Amino acid sequence: MSDADATVQSMADASPAKWHLAHTTWFFETMVLKRFAADYAVFDARFNFLFNSYYETIGARQPRPKRGMITRPSLDEIMAYRAHVDAAIEGLLDGDADPAAEELVELGCHHEQQHQELLLTDILHLFAQSPVRPAYRDGSAPEAVQEAAPADWISFDGGIVEIGHDGRGFSFDCEGPRHRALLEPFRLADRLVTNGEWLEFMAEGGYRDPLLWLADGWAQILEHGWAAPFYWEEGDSGWRSMTLRGIQPIDPAAPVTHVSYFEADAFATWAGKRLPSEAEWEHAAASLSIAPSSDPRRLRPRPASGEPGLKQMFGEVWQWTRSPFTPYPRFKPAEGAVGEYNGKFMCGQFVLRGSSVATPPEHARATYRNFFPPDKRWQFSGLRLAEDI
Amino acid sequence: MSDADATVQSMADASPAKWHLAHTTWFFETMVLKRFAADYAVFDARFNFLFNSYYETIGARQPRPKRGMITRPSLDEIMAYRAHVDAAIEGLLDGDADPAAEELVELGCHHEQQHQELLLTDILHLFAQSPVRPAYRDGSAPEAVQEAAPADWISFDGGIVEIGHDGRGFSFDCEGPRHRALLEPFRLADRLVTNGEWLEFMAEGGYRDPLLWLADGWAQILEHGWAAPFYWEEGDSGWRSMTLRGIQPIDPAAPVTHVSYFEADAFATWAGKRLPSEAEWEHAAASLSIAPSSDPRRLRPRPASGEPGLKQMFGEVWQWTRSPFTPYPRFKPAEGAVGEYNGKFMCGQFVLRGSSVATPPEHARATYRNFFPPDKRWQFSGLRLAEDI
Amino acid sequence: MSDADATVQSMADASPAKWHLAHTTWFFETMVLKRFAADYAVFDARFNFLFNSYYETIGARQPRPKRGMITRPSLDEIMAYRAHVDAAIEGLLDGDADPAAEELVELGCHHEQQHQELLLTDILHLFAQSPVRPAYRDGSAPEAVQEAAPADWISFDGGIVEIGHDGRGFSFDCEGPRHRALLEPFRLADRLVTNGEWLEFMAEGGYRDPLLWLADGWAQILEHGWAAPFYWEEGDSGWRSMTLRGIQPIDPAAPVTHVSYFEADAFATWAGKRLPSEAEWEHAAASLSIAPSSDPRRLRPRPASGEPGLKQMFGEVWQWTRSPFTPYPRFKPAEGAVGEYNGKFMCGQFVLRGSSVATPPEHARATYRNFFPPDKRWQFSGLRLAEDI
Amino acid sequence: MSDADATVQSMADASPAKWHLAHTTWFFETMVLKRFAADYAVFDARFNFLFNSYYETIGARQPRPKRGMITRPSLDEIMAYRAHVDAAIEGLLDGDADPAAEELVELGCHHEQQHQELLLTDILHLFAQSPVRPAYRDGSAPEAVQEAAPADWISFDGGIVEIGHDGRGFSFDCEGPRHRALLEPFRLADRLVTNGEWLEFMAEGGYRDPLLWLADGWAQILEHGWAAPFYWEEGDSGWRSMTLRGIQPIDPAAPVTHVSYFEADAFATWAGKRLPSEAEWEHAAASLSIAPSSDPRRLRPRPASGEPGLKQMFGEVWQWTRSPFTPYPRFKPAEGAVGEYNGKFMCGQFVLRGSSVATPPEHARATYRNFFPPDKRWQFSGLRLAEDI
Repeated sequence: MSDADATVQSMADASPAKWHLAHTTWFFETMVLKRFAADYAVFDARFNFLFNSYYETIGARQPRPKRGMITRPSLDEIMAYRAHVDAAIEGLLDGDADPAAEELVELGCHHEQQHQELLLTDILHLFAQSPVRPAYRDGSAPEAVQEAAPADWISFDGGIVEIGHDGRGFSFDCEGPRHRALLEPFRLADRLVTNGEWLEFMAEGGYRDPLLWLADGWAQILEHGWAAPFYWEEGDSGWRSMTLRGIQPIDPAAPVTHVSYFEADAFATWAGKRLPSEAEWEHAAASLSIAPSSDPRRLRPRPASGEPGLKQMFGEVWQWTRSPFTPYPRFKPAEGAVGEYNGKFMCGQFVLRGSSVATPPEHARATYRNFFPPDKRWQFSGLRLAEDI
Repeated sequence: MSDADATVQSMADASPAKWHLAHTTWFFETMVLKRFAADYAVFDARFNFLFNSYYETIGARQPRPKRGMITRPSLDEIMAYRAHVDAAIEGLLDGDADPAAEELVELGCHHEQQHQELLLTDILHLFAQSPVRPAYRDGSAPEAVQEAAPADWISFDGGIVEIGHDGRGFSFDCEGPRHRALLEPFRLADRLVTNGEWLEFMAEGGYRDPLLWLADGWAQILEHGWAAPFYWEEGDSGWRSMTLRGIQPIDPAAPVTHVSYFEADAFATWAGKRLPSEAEWEHAAASLSIAPSSDPRRLRPRPASGEPGLKQMFGEVWQWTRSPFTPYPRFKPAEGAVGEYNGKFMCGQFVLRGSSVATPPEHARATYRNFFPPDKRWQFSGLRLAEDI
Repeated sequence: MSDADATVQSMADASPAKWHLAHTTWFFETMVLKRFAADYAVFDARFNFLFNSYYETIGARQPRPKRGMITRPSLDEIMAYRAHVDAAIEGLLDGDADPAAEELVELGCHHEQQHQELLLTDILHLFAQSPVRPAYRDGSAPEAVQEAAPADWISFDGGIVEIGHDGRGFSFDCEGPRHRALLEPFRLADRLVTNGEWLEFMAEGGYRDPLLWLADGWAQILEHGWAAPFYWEEGDSGWRSMTLRGIQPIDPAAPVTHVSYFEADAFATWAGKRLPSEAEWEHAAASLSIAPSSDPRRLRPRPASGEPGLKQMFGEVWQWTRSPFTPYPRFKPAEGAVGEYNGKFMCGQFVLRGSSVATPPEHARATYRNFFPPDKRWQFSGLRLAEDI
Repeated sequence: MSDADATVQSMADASPAKWHLAHTTWFFETMVLKRFAADYAVFDARFNFLFNSYYETIGARQPRPKRGMITRPSLDEIMAYRAHVDAAIEGLLDGDADPAAEELVELGCHHEQQHQELLLTDILHLFAQSPVRPAYRDGSAPEAVQEAAPADWISFDGGIVEIGHDGRGFSFDCEGPRHRALLEPFRLADRLVTNGEWLEFMAEGGYRDPLLWLADGWAQILEHGWAAPFYWEEGDSGWRSMTLRGIQPIDPAAPVTHVSYFEADAFATWAGKRLPSEAEWEHAAASLSIAPSSDPRRLRPRPASGEPGLKQMFGEVWQWTRSPFTPYPRFKPAEGAVGEYNGKFMCGQFVLRGSSVATPPEHARATYRNFFPPDKRWQFSGLRLAEDI
């Protein structure tokens, strides 16, 4: 990636790579070093304005849609900023650090993992805007194009279950408190919806039948002309998709990705099923051990395989649930600036569960609540079907 | 109301009075007469285009933001249309009507009650746009301005409760199926939040502190400059408000109304409380008998009064809950066009419970789910506080 | 026209009929009676806010795009306002009126004639928005559909000529001062461009070839999909057009109307000609006597006919010139509020010359400068071709 | 300038530096090499899409507002593209080149000079968006802040004069044909309007009095809150301005720059004067010899000085005229793609005359017609006053 690649902002929802790199460092500097490292020398006082994301507690900041105007500092200077702050954090931890500082360092690491994922999704978006369609990483030999086996259905009894993080180990504030939830009996598909199934949905007029869609989703179709997942393009030799490895043919057996909540919901309606609730999903996932790190260089979801049972819960695509992102019972945002992390976004978004090819593997867990507005498509977002018993 | 008053559309969310009058009649004509009245003569074939609201099943229609272009038919012609259809419905019901038709007539009556309320809220909005500020009905002598007594708190044990409509008597499809819900112990305020309490919120900078607000709500403040409830105006003699009885002084003891979900939520945060969930609200309301029809000519919410216990659950202002409008477990939309009634709006809206001064009293019930987007303010919408025990 | 017809505003550029009726009366009240009629009793003090158009000198006013919110006063009340002011003006003129007052009354009459025309064009626009397409006046038997004879070309020598109003009789300030202009030899078509010629332009791809268009005009095509004059619709039996007499077939021999400057300019380029300058047009028109009033109930342009020589200069459609609306040499706006009448609009508009079927015949003169932005199409605007010799 | 500086697009009106560099080279490749250099090997076939500006004749292209998405090719690759094309052009000219090719090479050189200026104005705009406010070139010691002497007025007799380019030496097509124009007697100020005079206009409420402004200009003030020239900021020590040398104090004696046509016109009205027409300006300038190249590294306009007579006609700031950009009599656009150069923009723009500190000195001439829309402010645009005698 060049300095230019790392500087440009391709839409208001995305941020430049350079901004991600600097913002995560700013988080450590602001939340930890300024408060706990007595003799810390601020790297550059202007960075507080440049790299604050949305913390009202911390003050004025570069407007989000103008993050791409920051041609300076350069990528090199930002790497120097990162080294400066990393060294100071190491110094702090080497000493007799305040437990509150250690907790914030842990939060900062998880925060940085989130931005590692966003950095990839935002670069993909940027490169998809360019007529020359650069590849973030060179394409391997094209994957074998295959058909997926039909999905199996795994049953769950329901009843009163416990969900939410129990506080052992790290979690974001919105994952708790752990609490009781009441589930009716349900079934989950053992695998994700595939590109092949999505092509069938398209062939049967899925994008042209308003009765399959939420009203707001249909309005998106009329306004934007959606007729396939984001990044798909029809060419002479069939559908292809822009990926982090450049333009690639669609693999029918691989999970569909880059679909909005609206599309996921319409597909489920078309299929006579529904999306799972986040409680159903978490309850089902709780018993699974998370697969050891998939190849971090893969960058594309792959077909389901292996033993019977729930597959592809993690590491392929985020899975839309039917649950709006709302506070759990007795949820209170954390004190101070980090209280702005999640709570103030609990409106107008839907929860996604699991993790994707872009998620750092150690960042995935069964209680994790990802969330995006229902029209967004640039994340690695797909779906798994559910049904009532 | 003149023909002109009944024709103009004051914003895309609102409809002209004439349109409400014709659309509800169109509903009977389309859903009942065309299907069940063998020899029914359509009043005017063009009305199907003019007065279809959003039924994709039924086809093309006047775009919503252009409902105000329909200067013709006149109000008189629409009254004739109503008489024509009313007579045909009576004829149908006098005979040996199909039970499906009778069910749809009942639905049509409840549908019309909904529009009776919207007609009032939309006229208020229209008259508020006019510099001459007409009154829909002349103001009575100004109400005595008083202070409200502090709220009492009513406790509920929680546990597994049943909510949703049980199918005896009429309900909209989204009110069911009746199902189990799990509640943690909670308390509800015995009365609604008052204008006096809202003035205190304003005086303490409620509209200026971003930490009280959801991010999307704060964006509304920055964009629109919200600093008081909708229709409020500050004058030399204090705050006044546009009402269906013209400009009136604010009564501190009366419930606040015309606030958005964002404002209701920020107020609750400021007060150290929260909004109730819809399940909590319904559980609390289930045991109440709905007050006999309040004076339908009142048109303004009035202060709480009477015996200890939950007050003002119905007939004053709709009460925002913290619950997004989502399908109940095993919910299926009705078959046919009426299946578009509610299900396709289950995204991006919040549930309001109770009923308002504009609601026909017989339209209120404990299971009723009203819903609006979180930024809307032109309905009679207020709030009641809740807290965890 | 009903009260409703007279109240609705169909777009920001158009005004309700009621507003036109009240505004022209307000002009007399404000510019004449308040200043010169000592004992004049203002009809309603609120009307100054409601019916001021754009006079900054006079103060705050109803925002232009919200003129359609004025459902009250009713049409009847506005007619009473007109009678009240008319009587006061008559009283003033019966007495020994100040010559300045008399001059302003004359200006007010010409102002009212302008609004008589706008009232017609705005009603046509409103009725064209309505799916029931009302006719302002019932259609006579359809006109015989005919072919026009080819245009003849009338030559002019050029040289130094005088244009602009000489101050004898009434004129608007922008028509003067009379001044010298230098013309090169040129020719004008003896008649207007016809619908038949326009159909040929369309058939040869006129709306699809960017090289014929000004860049801003081509942008309009891409944004709005222009493919024919405004109000034209293609049906099974060919092109038809919404008119003040309802939907009517296109007459190939009649002048094309409801075209923008961009379209007029593109047509001229396609034809290998150009639009005349306003000085050329006025010089050519100066020697003509204006035809006695055409039938004011006609409301549709008619084919050219009669003796050789310049035809259709007045009373059919306004004719776009290539001249931006700029001040004549030594132009100074009038003193006081009426100085805002024309001068402040001398930017971004093009001059049209002649007059249309909607213009009161006594309002037409050779020096008259009408002006509209180049993308506007709702006026009766057409074109006449010119060329260099 | 870094690769990042050269890549970002700060608004739709501006282009990235890299784009300017590549587009001017593309012009040579497309207009000259592809047509006249038989064995020319296209550098990269994708560049035709990337670097076409607005030539419909040549086909599809990157949408203007998305020029900033082109992070690749890098600045280095674009410099290689330039070297490749330069070499091919040199090879072509060394041989026995077609005179048509030589003419197009000359046009390409002048085209490149235009973009040299735009490159500077666009970088200034980009750097002004950045909170760190980079300087394109380091600031010299601040200039002495001085007062300007009052303007003198130079008289001209008027009469029939000739303006426009006579075809000897290079000119753009819109500068001709040379033709007669009729001027009334007039006077021009001998120098440009200064910052000091502009401060006086501001102090006397120039930005707050609607009667000074064209209606469209006043609308800009209401929408954008204009209260000073573009790039001006008020600080504790008075007004400062973002410049190519970073933030600098305002020099009262230097010409005001970065004002729109609307502001220039309002200032002239306030001063009781007017802007010159382009014919007046050109007639006055025709007798002057253009000053030898001012210091190309100055980058800021400087105060008037020297002998009596017209000063600052070239090399300081472009001077708004009151003339809309329209075709001269008998103007015909050039044949082929280069015919799209100027003619299609003859609508909605005003002519500026002279040249600025950003103009290559050899690019200035008395017949030069620069043009921009009346609300644009990011060019080095100022004004000189005129009056009628």
